[in-house]
Amino acid sequence: MSDQTNVLSTEELGKINAYWRACNYLSAGMIYLKGNPLLREKLKAEHIKNRLLGHWGSDPGQSFIWVHMNRLIKKYDLNAIFISGPGHGAPATLANSYLEGYYSEVYPDKSCDEVGMLKFFKQFSFPGGIGSHCTSETPGSIHEGGELGYSLSHAYGAVFDSPDLIATCVVGDGEAETGPLATAWHSNKFLNPIVDGAVLPILHLNGYKIANPSILSRISHQELEYLFLGYGYQPYFVEGHEPELMHQKMAHTMEQCITEIKRIQKEARDSKKAVRPKWPMIVLRSPKGWTGPKQIDGKKVEDFWRAHQVPISNVTKSPKHLEAVEEWFKSYKPEELFDESGALIAELKELAPTGDRRMSANPHANGGKLRKPLLMPRFQDYAVKVEKNAHEYISPTHVLGTFLKDVVKKNLHNFRVFGPDETASNKLDAIYEASGKTWLADKLPEDEDGGNLSCDGRVMEMLSEHTLQGWFEGYVLTGRHGFFSTYESFVHVIDSMFNQHAKWLASCREIKWRAPISSINLLITSLVWRQDHNGFTHQDPGFLDVVANKSPDVVRVYMPPDANCLLSVADHCLKSVNYFNVIVSDKQDHLTFLDMESAIAHCTKGIGIWDWVSNDQGVEPDVVIACAGDVPTMEAVAAVQILNQKIPDLKIRFINVVDLYRLMNDREHPHGLRDSDFDSLFTMDKPVIFNFHSYSSLIHKLTYSRKNHSNIHVRGYKEKGSINTPLELLIINGVDRFNLCIDVIDRVPHLQRTAAHVKEWLKQQILESVTYAHTEGIDRDDIRGWKWEGKQQ
Amino acid sequence: MSDQTNVLSTEELGKINAYWRACNYLSAGMIYLKGNPLLREKLKAEHIKNRLLGHWGSDPGQSFIWVHMNRLIKKYDLNAIFISGPGHGAPATLANSYLEGYYSEVYPDKSCDEVGMLKFFKQFSFPGGIGSHCTSETPGSIHEGGELGYSLSHAYGAVFDSPDLIATCVVGDGEAETGPLATAWHSNKFLNPIVDGAVLPILHLNGYKIANPSILSRISHQELEYLFLGYGYQPYFVEGHEPELMHQKMAHTMEQCITEIKRIQKEARDSKKAVRPKWPMIVLRSPKGWTGPKQIDGKKVEDFWRAHQVPISNVTKSPKHLEAVEEWFKSYKPEELFDESGALIAELKELAPTGDRRMSANPHANGGKLRKPLLMPRFQDYAVKVEKNAHEYISPTHVLGTFLKDVVKKNLHNFRVFGPDETASNKLDAIYEASGKTWLADKLPEDEDGGNLSCDGRVMEMLSEHTLQGWFEGYVLTGRHGFFSTYESFVHVIDSMFNQHAKWLASCREIKWRAPISSINLLITSLVWRQDHNGFTHQDPGFLDVVANKSPDVVRVYMPPDANCLLSVADHCLKSVNYFNVIVSDKQDHLTFLDMESAIAHCTKGIGIWDWVSNDQGVEPDVVIACAGDVPTMEAVAAVQILNQKIPDLKIRFINVVDLYRLMNDREHPHGLRDSDFDSLFTMDKPVIFNFHSYSSLIHKLTYSRKNHSNIHVRGYKEKGSINTPLELLIINGVDRFNLCIDVIDRVPHLQRTAAHVKEWLKQQILESVTYAHTEGIDRDDIRGWKWEGKQQ
Repeated sequence: MSDQTNVLSTEELGKINAYWRACNYLSAGMIYLKGNPLLREKLKAEHIKNRLLGHWGSDPGQSFIWVHMNRLIKKYDLNAIFISGPGHGAPATLANSYLEGYYSEVYPDKSCDEVGMLKFFKQFSFPGGIGSHCTSETPGSIHEGGELGYSLSHAYGAVFDSPDLIATCVVGDGEAETGPLATAWHSNKFLNPIVDGAVLPILHLNGYKIANPSILSRISHQELEYLFLGYGYQPYFVEGHEPELMHQKMAHTMEQCITEIKRIQKEARDSKKAVRPKWPMIVLRSPKGWTGPKQIDGKKVEDFWRAHQVPISNVTKSPKHLEAVEEWFKSYKPEELFDESGALIAELKELAPTGDRRMSANPHANGGKLRKPLLMPRFQDYAVKVEKNAHEYISPTHVLGTFLKDVVKKNLHNFRVFGPDETASNKLDAIYEASGKTWLADKLPEDEDGGNLSCDGRVMEMLSEHTLQGWFEGYVLTGRHGFFSTYESFVHVIDSMFNQHAKWLASCREIKWRAPISSINLLITSLVWRQDHNGFTHQDPGFLDVVANKSPDVVRVYMPPDANCLLSVADHCLKSVNYFNVIVSDKQDHLTFLDMESAIAHCTKGIGIWDWVSNDQGVEPDVVIACAGDVPTMEAVAAVQILNQKIPDLKIRFINVVDLYRLMNDREHPHGLRDSDFDSLFTMDKPVIFNFHSYSSLIHKLTYSRKNHSNIHVRGYKEKGSINTPLELLIINGVDRFNLCIDVIDRVPHLQRTAAHVKEWLKQQILESVTYAHTEGIDRDDIRGWKWEGKQQ
Repeated sequence: MSDQTNVLSTEELGKINAYWRACNYLSAGMIYLKGNPLLREKLKAEHIKNRLLGHWGSDPGQSFIWVHMNRLIKKYDLNAIFISGPGHGAPATLANSYLEGYYSEVYPDKSCDEVGMLKFFKQFSFPGGIGSHCTSETPGSIHEGGELGYSLSHAYGAVFDSPDLIATCVVGDGEAETGPLATAWHSNKFLNPIVDGAVLPILHLNGYKIANPSILSRISHQELEYLFLGYGYQPYFVEGHEPELMHQKMAHTMEQCITEIKRIQKEARDSKKAVRPKWPMIVLRSPKGWTGPKQIDGKKVEDFWRAHQVPISNVTKSPKHLEAVEEWFKSYKPEELFDESGALIAELKELAPTGDRRMSANPHANGGKLRKPLLMPRFQDYAVKVEKNAHEYISPTHVLGTFLKDVVKKNLHNFRVFGPDETASNKLDAIYEASGKTWLADKLPEDEDGGNLSCDGRVMEMLSEHTLQGWFEGYVLTGRHGFFSTYESFVHVIDSMFNQHAKWLASCREIKWRAPISSINLLITSLVWRQDHNGFTHQDPGFLDVVANKSPDVVRVYMPPDANCLLSVADHCLKSVNYFNVIVSDKQDHLTFLDMESAIAHCTKGIGIWDWVSNDQGVEPDVVIACAGDVPTMEAVAAVQILNQKIPDLKIRFINVVDLYRLMNDREHPHGLRDSDFDSLFTMDKPVIFNFHSYSSLIHKLTYSRKNHSNIHVRGYKEKGSINTPLELLIINGVDRFNLCIDVIDRVPHLQRTAAHVKEWLKQQILESVTYAHTEGIDRDDIRGWKWEGKQQ
C-alpha cells in the first residue's frame, strides 16, 4: 500500500492542488470583490465591496477536505455529503458547489463564466444576497452553520437508515467546545454498520476561534488521541502546513479511512452481525487562513486568530492593503484555473464527481427529493371506545403508542422515534412491540429482562435532548420521518435548536429547488399539571412562547384534550411537510371526552363548541367557558358541572381549542379564524373564562385583535408550585374547577350578589382540599377519577 | 503506604459501614414511612405513605461517597462541599445533612430524635413538604438536581478563587450523557492550582437511567480510561458491590486523590508556577439501589433499572411487599444505629465533621454568608461627555468595559467576567488591561501577540454558554460576583439554565437560613438590529419572553438606550442581590442620548418623558411615541425629527423605557408603575406608538391591564430579515423612522387626510433606501451617523 508521501502522482497532486487553489480563490473573491472577478485588470478600490464581510479562516481547510473527498467519490463511486460544522466558513461550501456546476444549475444567473462569477461574488454577504454561513440557500448543505454545535448529530441523523451514504462531517475546533457537540461523539453507540451509513468526522484543528485558541488545539497530542479513543473512534492525524506534503498525507489518510469504513460495513453485512467497531475519524491540524496573507502591517495573520474573518481590512482606503489583497489573490494564479469564458478549465473540472455524486448536488442534501410519504395505518382503528363523554380514563400517550407501533411496523427504515430515556416513562412503550431501542454499546445478559435493546431499533434514546433533536433534524432533512417525545419542563434545553430549525424552514419557503421535507413532530408530555410530585423545577409550560415568536408559516401548536383527539392530531402531523409541529399531551391517565367521530370533527375544525357541556342552545350565553389542554379541559368541564348544579339558570357556552393558532386572526396565521367566526364563537360582549394549559399571556397574544378581547379572562400557570397534590397544584394557580366557578361568579353581572353563597361554598372546598392534601399526601377525592354526570352527546 | 485492602482498621471499617447503613436507612425511610420511623413496632400498612415517591437508585452510592469524604475531612481538616449531580437522589444529601445535625439546626422541628425523624421522613416528596431532588431547601446544596447536566460546571464555579475549597462532585452516568456535562470536563483547562481550589469529580457508574443502561457504563474499561485521560484527568477506578471490600478500596482511593490534590496545589503554590496538572477523578462503579432489595416478585431490582425510583411498590395493599420492605429496612439494623431517643449513637456521630466543616453546613454552600459586597468605582467617572443630546456615537459596551476594568481591579478574586469567546468582540476588551483570560491549556509564543491569556485571568472564555453559565452560577452561589456577556441570538442556548436559576432564586425567598447571593448579571449584546450582516439566523430577541414567564420577584430586564444609561444600570445590577438581571445593550457604536446626570435620573425612574424630544409642553399631546432599546430609541427620535419638520403642529410626547417592568402594574411586579402614574405618562386615550427592541407581544403582555392599552401600537421584530443593511433590516420589520412616521399619520385623527403627501414622501424614502442597499451594499445615508438636530436639554 502507498505511504503518506506518494499516494498521489505528481500530475494528480498538481491537479488537486490547482483545484484547491480555485476553491480558495473563489472563497477570497466572494469576501472582497464586486468587480474584476478574474483579476484580468489591475485591482482597484472600485472592485472592492463597500463593506467587507465573511469568514476566511476555515475556508481553505474545509475546501481541502472537500477536494480530497471528491477524489475518493470518483475513485470508489461513493455516495457522500458534506456537513460544514464551522458553518461561518460558507465560502468553502459555496466555492465547491460553484465549481461543480450545481450552483449554476439551481441559480442560473450565477453561471459558470465571468459574468456569473461576478454575481456569485457580489451576492455573498450582500444585502438581498446570501449569508456568510451555510444557510438553506446553500446547495449541498443540510446544516445551518450560524449557531454552532450540531454538525455531528446532524451527520449521524443523515446516515441512519441510508446504508450507502457517507457523511463527511467537518467539526470545527470552536464548535467542538460546545456541549451538544461534545456529547454527540457518542452517537457511534447508536450507529449500526449494517442498516446505517457512516460518518467520517474530521476535527478541524484550525487553532483559533474569534479571539482565542481552541481548547482541543492546545492539549497534548496524546490527550487528543486518548480523547477520541475514549469516545470510541480510531483517530488518524493529518498535521502540517506545506500544501504538497499535506495533500499526500490527506489523500493517504482519507483513503485509509474510507477503506476502513468499507471493511467494517462489509464485515458486518456479510456476517449479519452488527457490532460497534472503532470507526475512523481524522484530526486535521492546518493553519487558520491557510494560503492567505502571512501577515499584514507586520502582524501575524495566517495561522492566527486574525485570519478568522476578513484578513485584510481597510482595502479601499489603503493602497498598501489593496496591493496585499491583489498579491494574495494572484498567488492562486486564477489565469491558470479558469478559461477565457471564466469557467473552470476542463482538466480540473474532471476532478469533481458528476451528477448526483457531486456533494453539492447529492439528493440526500435536498432530502425532500428522496422523501417517501409514510404508509399510515388507519388511526381510527386505535380509537378509545367512548360510551359516555368524559367518563373513562386512559393515558393518551399510551393510546398513541399503539398507533405509533404500527407506523413503525409499516415504515421500517423510514421512520424513527426519539426520546431522552423516556419513551417508556412517556407511556409510548407499545412501540417496543414493533421495534426495540437502538443500542450498539455493550450488552449484558440481564438486558433480556425488559431492556428492549436492539442493534436495529427504531427507538432512539440517549439522555441528551440536543443529540436527539440533532439526529431527528438530520433524519428528516435527508428525506425521512420521525417523532420526538420529551418532558415539557426540559424541552427548553432545545429552544435554540427549535429557533434555528424554524428559521431554516421559513427561509426554505423561498427556495424553489428545495423539495418539501417531513415536519418535525414534537410531543411535549409529562406536563406541568401532573408535575405536582416533582415540584417547582419541573413546571415550565413556556416552550410555546418560544414557538409563538417564530414565523406562523412554519409552526403549529396542538393541544388535543384526550386520547382520540391526540390520535387525530398525530395522524395529521405525521402526514404534513415543512412544519415544526408541537403537540402538547400528558402521559398520565386522563378523561376521554370525545368518541372518535367527534374527535375527528373537532380536530379538523381545531376549535369548537361542545354542545354536551353547553346549555346555551337557542339563547345567548351568560358566559363562555373556553379551554385548551387536557387537564385545563377537565377542570373546565368539572366547573360547568358545579355551576349547573349550583346555578342551574346560568347559560354557559363551552369551547375547546385544539389548534392553538385558530385563536389568531386569519390575516396573521394561515390557521387563524376570521373575525366573524371568532365573534360568533366567543360573542362580542360576554365574559369569557379561558382555562389554559400554559402561561396566560399567550392567549392574550393570540386573541389581541379580537373584538371581545377585553372580556377574555385567562387562567394559566402562574409559576406557583412546590410539592403538591394534583388538585392543590391547580388551586394555587387558579386553574381548578372551584376557582373557575369563582371567576364566573365574579364576572357575570348579578351573580356576585345572587350567588354569594356559592362562592363561599367554593372557597370552603378549596380550603378543605389543601388541608387534606397536606395531611394525607393525596387529594381528598382523587380528581384523577372525576366523571362528568351531565348530558351526553 | 496502605494498599486497597487494609487502609481501614476493622473497627473503623465497621463504624463507617454502620454510618453508611444509617444513611441508607434514612434514605429508604423518607421514601416510605409516615409512621413507625425506627421500626420499633412491626411495620403496618398505616405506616406507609399513601403515595410513594422518590429516587432510591443512586442514594446508597452517593452516601458512600459522602461518608468517605467525611473521613478525609476529619483526617485532613478539609474544607469541602458536596455537589450531587444525580440530584433526584436527594435522600442521600438529606440523610447526611440530618445525621450531621445541621438539618435540625435550620429546621428545628426536624429534630434528632424519633419525633423529628418522623417529620423528616413524612415531609419528603409530600404536599407542602420538600422535593425528591436537591432543591434550594436542601442544606449543603448549591445545585438544583432536577434538570441534569450542570453539576460539574457548578463545582468548578464554586472552587474558583477559593483556594482551600474542594468540591466533591458526583456526576451521574445519566447526566454524563448530556451535552453541558460532556463539555464541562474541559473546565480543568481553566482551573489554576494556586488561586483556585479543586474539584474531585466522581463519575458514578450506577449503570442505569430510568429505563436504559447508561452509555458510559457500557463501554470498555479501556475506553473509559482513555476518555478521562483525554479530558486531562487521571482516573482512579473503584468497582464492585461487596460493601467491606468497597469501603477499603474507596478509603484508599479517595485518600490517594486528596493527597494528589494537595501535592499538586503545594507544588504550584510553592513554586508559584501554575501549570495544568492531571487532576485526579474517580470512577465509582457500584450497583444501582445498592443494599436495597435484590429482587421483588421474582424480578431483578438491585443493580438494575428497576431500582431507579421506588424499588417496591404497592406496599399498603400487598402484605408480601410490606414484608419485603420491612425485611429490607431491618437489614440496616436501625436499633444498632440510633439510641433510645432516636438520635444517631455517639460512636457514629463522631465520624462526621463538626461545625462548618460538615458538608451540609459548609458556608460555601450557603454562599451569601461569605459574600462581600463589591468595591465599586464611581461609575460616573466613566461617563461619556455629552455636549448635545443624540449627537455623538460610541459603543456602549466599550464604555462599560472601561468601568468593568476597574471593578475587576478593585475586586480581584471576588469577581469574574464570563463570555463565549466574545469579550473582545463584544467590545469589553478594556477589561484585559486589568486582567487577562484564564488559560491553563498549552500556550504558544505567538499568544503574546494580543492573546491576553493568563493563568490567573478574571475573564473566562470558552465556546460553551452552558459551561460559562454553570461556572457563573457556581461562583455566585458560593458568595462571589460576576458579569456575563453573550450574543443575543444564542442566549437561548441557556434558556433552561435561566429557568432553573430563576426558580432557585424564587424558592430561596422562602428560606430564611439562605443568605442573599449576588445577582446573575447577564448582558445580552450583538443585538438583532445590528445583525443585518449575519442575517436571519442571528436575529432572535426572544429571550425576554422566556424571562418574563418567571417570577417577578427575581427577574429584572433593563434596556439602557445609551452608554451612560448602561453604566448606571450596570452599577445598580452589580450591587444587587438575589436577582437575575438581564441587560440588553448593543456593542456597535450608538448615539449617546443623555449626559450622565440625566442618565442617572432617567435610569433611577426607569421610565420617563424626554422633554428635549417632546413638544407637548403645556398641552395635551396628539400622540405618544415610546421606545425601549438603543436602536429603536434612535429610530423613534429620528421619527420625531422628521415629524417636527414635516408636520410642525403635531404635539408629540416622547417616552423612553429603561426598566421594562415599569410598564407592568405595581400589583404584579415590584417595579410596576401605579395605574395613575402610567395614565399620566401614556394618557388615557391618545395613540401610543411604541418602538420596541424585541417581539411586540411582550409590551402588550406588560401593559395588558392599562386603561390606554387598546391604543398602544407596538412595533418590534417580526421575524423578517436576511442579509440587509442596518436601515433595510429596520424597514422590513417596521421599526424604522419612516414607518414610525407612517404609523403616527395612520393613527392620529385627521393626519391621514392632512398629511397624505408626507406619507407618500415617507414611502418613497423607504423604497429608495432599499434599492440603494441592494445596489451598493450599504445604507444610502449611513443611519449609524445620524444626528438629532432638534432642541436640547
